[in-house]
Amino acid sequence: MTKVNIRIPATTANMGPGFDTLGMALKLYNEMEVEETNNETEIYNCGTKLTENFKDNLIYKTITQTMDKYGYDYKGLKINVTKCDIPMSRGLGSSSACIVGGIRAADSIMNTNMSLEDIISFATEIEGHPDNVVPAALGGMVISLKIKDRINYSRVKLPTQLKFAAMIPTFEVSTALSRKVLPESYLKEDCIFNISRSAMLISALNNGELDKLRICFEDRIHQPYRKKLIEDYDAIFEYVKKFGSIGEFISGSGSTLMAVVKDNNADEFISYMKNFLNGLENSWKIILLEPDLEGAKVL
Amino acid sequence: MTKVNIRIPATTANMGPGFDTLGMALKLYNEMEVEETNNETEIYNCGTKLTENFKDNLIYKTITQTMDKYGYDYKGLKINVTKCDIPMSRGLGSSSACIVGGIRAADSIMNTNMSLEDIISFATEIEGHPDNVVPAALGGMVISLKIKDRINYSRVKLPTQLKFAAMIPTFEVSTALSRKVLPESYLKEDCIFNISRSAMLISALNNGELDKLRICFEDRIHQPYRKKLIEDYDAIFEYVKKFGSIGEFISGSGSTLMAVVKDNNADEFISYMKNFLNGLENSWKIILLEPDLEGAKVL
Repeated sequence: MTKVNIRIPATTANMGPGFDTLGMALKLYNEMEVEETNNETEIYNCGTKLTENFKDNLIYKTITQTMDKYGYDYKGLKINVTKCDIPMSRGLGSSSACIVGGIRAADSIMNTNMSLEDIISFATEIEGHPDNVVPAALGGMVISLKIKDRINYSRVKLPTQLKFAAMIPTFEVSTALSRKVLPESYLKEDCIFNISRSAMLISALNNGELDKLRICFEDRIHQPYRKKLIEDYDAIFEYVKKFGSIGEFISGSGSTLMAVVKDNNADEFISYMKNFLNGLENSWKIILLEPDLEGAKVL
Repeated sequence: MTKVNIRIPATTANMGPGFDTLGMALKLYNEMEVEETNNETEIYNCGTKLTENFKDNLIYKTITQTMDKYGYDYKGLKINVTKCDIPMSRGLGSSSACIVGGIRAADSIMNTNMSLEDIISFATEIEGHPDNVVPAALGGMVISLKIKDRINYSRVKLPTQLKFAAMIPTFEVSTALSRKVLPESYLKEDCIFNISRSAMLISALNNGELDKLRICFEDRIHQPYRKKLIEDYDAIFEYVKKFGSIGEFISGSGSTLMAVVKDNNADEFISYMKNFLNGLENSWKIILLEPDLEGAKVL
């Protein structure tokens, strides 16, 4: 029976001013092997066999929902997550990776040849919002927005010199809480603030105007409210600026903080920040990432 | 004494989702001859000599303010507006044209060689907002935003096939009233609506994704409130869609309405719309424009 091996990138959403609309895939991956079998379903998560409640597993749920949607009959599945580099519940798109990976796996097993549009629509239906699943499926940086059931998107060209330093704490931020702290409405000037920055961010990236990025990553819609959920936010973002960051933002709804750095400064930046982060009360790790341009991929 | 001849383009601001931030120069021009003289100041506006209150004339005020700023002593000025194709108070940047033209004229006469940054900052100081003066000075489509006294901007590449059909009524919309009808705050979903569209508009233009423009020009920040100030707004925008418009918006705060059309459809579009506009109660004219890429220019 068909066995498929899929690699799915981590994603960072919002990216400062682009609340609920911008997202980018990163070269940090999960991998899963999925096989249709004649036996009972088995799920392995990086060496550990899931026993209880395995039907709540997001990859399993996505695969079976996709197969149900296409009326595909299967007996059993063997799902083996062989690589779990994307940390969970840290704002790096781990659930989108499960969803996009699950749909791609089901598509390969069923041999349905789903279009990218169908993959993206269905993934958004499961995830609830498109800003992580679209870059997870497509790769690169993407603007996406949903109109009725249709996902509209446009890909953004990225200057090759940009690297992204992800600072990942051990604590999580609850997605529900991170939604709850946001106001229901915003002052006109704050709307205009984000409208102008999100537009200028796309233009500055397209034009390679790196000196303009600092102001482009500013935000007044979500970060001023969410920063209190992330201990040492202010101290960290003050330090990344000193060490050469050209922009910084909360990845998704956190808890990961992201600093944008130029490649010629990246190694030094990481070593300075490692020292600084080691002095904080919470435990943080920092990893240097580049954009992934391929998206979810059958290996 | 130095005599200078300046051409300044019309500009269209907001462009749908980009409230107070997007603007584009158009190939529709005013021209002015400015000369320092040893006589009393004289101002001619397309053949008519201004007699009363000529000191309120925006070009005169701008030139003299610029000269005062640089401590330049002059005896008299002869200002001759030789071409006045930009209609006044219709949302096509006629005041920005006076301001940018006035500064460029003063700069040429004083031989100060002002930087583009200085011209733009000073023009914004006089106009109050950068979204018309920046494209009037630079040409093309520009995203601009003001941080303290500094104007930050980024130019947007435009697909060459795009033409802009300006539908200009005889009635004006008061700028003060058009500000007053706007709410002080907006629902989160309306902010996100414009954030996503303004970002996607820049990306779609950069990528030449003309099929994506229709949704990119949508807006929930100003047009839903201002449309009631423009009679036949709904009827006109319903018709432009039928006749092949790929996007439409209020130019500035109106009263001009703008439809975006592809060059291969433009002539037909104009002739259909002329007929339609002729049937309306108010008198409208329609002109087909392309982006101006040069900005204000000493001829």
